[in-house]
Amino acid sequence: MTSSTLLHLDSSISPAGSVSRALTDRFATAWRARHGAAARYRHRDLAADPVPAVGAAYEALGRRTERKGPLPPADVATLVDGPEEAREWALTRPLIEELRAAGTLLLGSPMYNFTVSTGLKAWIDRVSFPGVFLDPDSGERLLRDTRVVVVAVRGGGYGPGTPREHFDFQLPYLRAYFGNLGVPAEHLHVVTAELTRAADIPALNGLEPLAAESLAAAGEAVDGLAATL
Amino acid sequence: MTSSTLLHLDSSISPAGSVSRALTDRFATAWRARHGAAARYRHRDLAADPVPAVGAAYEALGRRTERKGPLPPADVATLVDGPEEAREWALTRPLIEELRAAGTLLLGSPMYNFTVSTGLKAWIDRVSFPGVFLDPDSGERLLRDTRVVVVAVRGGGYGPGTPREHFDFQLPYLRAYFGNLGVPAEHLHVVTAELTRAADIPALNGLEPLAAESLAAAGEAVDGLAATL
Repeated sequence: MTSSTLLHLDSSISPAGSVSRALTDRFATAWRARHGAAARYRHRDLAADPVPAVGAAYEALGRRTERKGPLPPADVATLVDGPEEAREWALTRPLIEELRAAGTLLLGSPMYNFTVSTGLKAWIDRVSFPGVFLDPDSGERLLRDTRVVVVAVRGGGYGPGTPREHFDFQLPYLRAYFGNLGVPAEHLHVVTAELTRAADIPALNGLEPLAAESLAAAGEAVDGLAATL
Repeated sequence: MTSSTLLHLDSSISPAGSVSRALTDRFATAWRARHGAAARYRHRDLAADPVPAVGAAYEALGRRTERKGPLPPADVATLVDGPEEAREWALTRPLIEELRAAGTLLLGSPMYNFTVSTGLKAWIDRVSFPGVFLDPDSGERLLRDTRVVVVAVRGGGYGPGTPREHFDFQLPYLRAYFGNLGVPAEHLHVVTAELTRAADIPALNGLEPLAAESLAAAGEAVDGLAATL
């Protein structure tokens, strides 16, 4: 059993009927029941309560920090110059602290226009502050023990061998992004539900049975992960 | 000379010192001088004046529209149900009309965390409304004559054969996205400036001459395109 802090992010714009939300809820419920009252749980809805897009002052602070090498968040605070940078840092630091503290990150990611949602990209652009996921002394990657569960939901089919395989800029992107952030590939667990719009996109009609199979398999995968992480 | 309407989008979060903004300005200035006073020009700054992220009512209207098949924007308006959908559609329709009217789309795209900025993704998620870039009668693609100039700027190097080649989820993504939207591959012109952060990222030190070469080549490419499109 890994560190008992779960950070749960949802990014679907649908409050009701969202497949990604149903699957992340299923994971979070099972995980919390298993880990008990002592476990910490933080949920962020990146659609209902969006992370503001980063601005010029974020970039200025980031570049100043980068020139110093890796720094813990408390030291970044001492580099803040002026109210705009203070505002950017106040929006950013809690996201960094949450991710650093998470034993497990649970990420609900619907595919919009072949990649992650605007809301998830806003979180990514803000949390990816230079150096804050490295140990300043050893240079070690602070997320080396973090488990990441990506629940990737796609209206169509993007699996290997399908005609749309090369339109998947969601899963390969998230693998590259978290790998670069310091999460080892073996700690990144991907659950996919595909063809979720088979019933209402004419080009996908007839694929409903495959969609149902994919959804059932995703549910089982979520249960399996919640029983081990 | 193509249709004389230029839609110019910038998405860098840096108002000053942005390489992508300098290059798109260079294109726009040359293009406007060449096309003269009768040419139409529209500039959108997706960072300073961000497109709001799409919400649940956008999705509801989009799905209702999709079931009807391709529709022109005026007909989508008749499907709007309630004030939330009206608000979403009011934010969306002008972006669609601008893109439909553009002979040339000029897009300044800095790479942030290996892909497009949050601001550009917000525009993509909003403009990509079902069916509005297809002719309702013939099914033809309305953007088949649209020229797209992508000015892609990257702090590091992501070219073929470089160690970071497989971290490029910006250019392959934009090629796939615009291709799917109906822009023929031969009408998508890409200008790249790479290693723009060579001077201030320690791992890139020593690559400044390559960065200068890349920037000079990008400027020449922009001039060449502005002289023909």
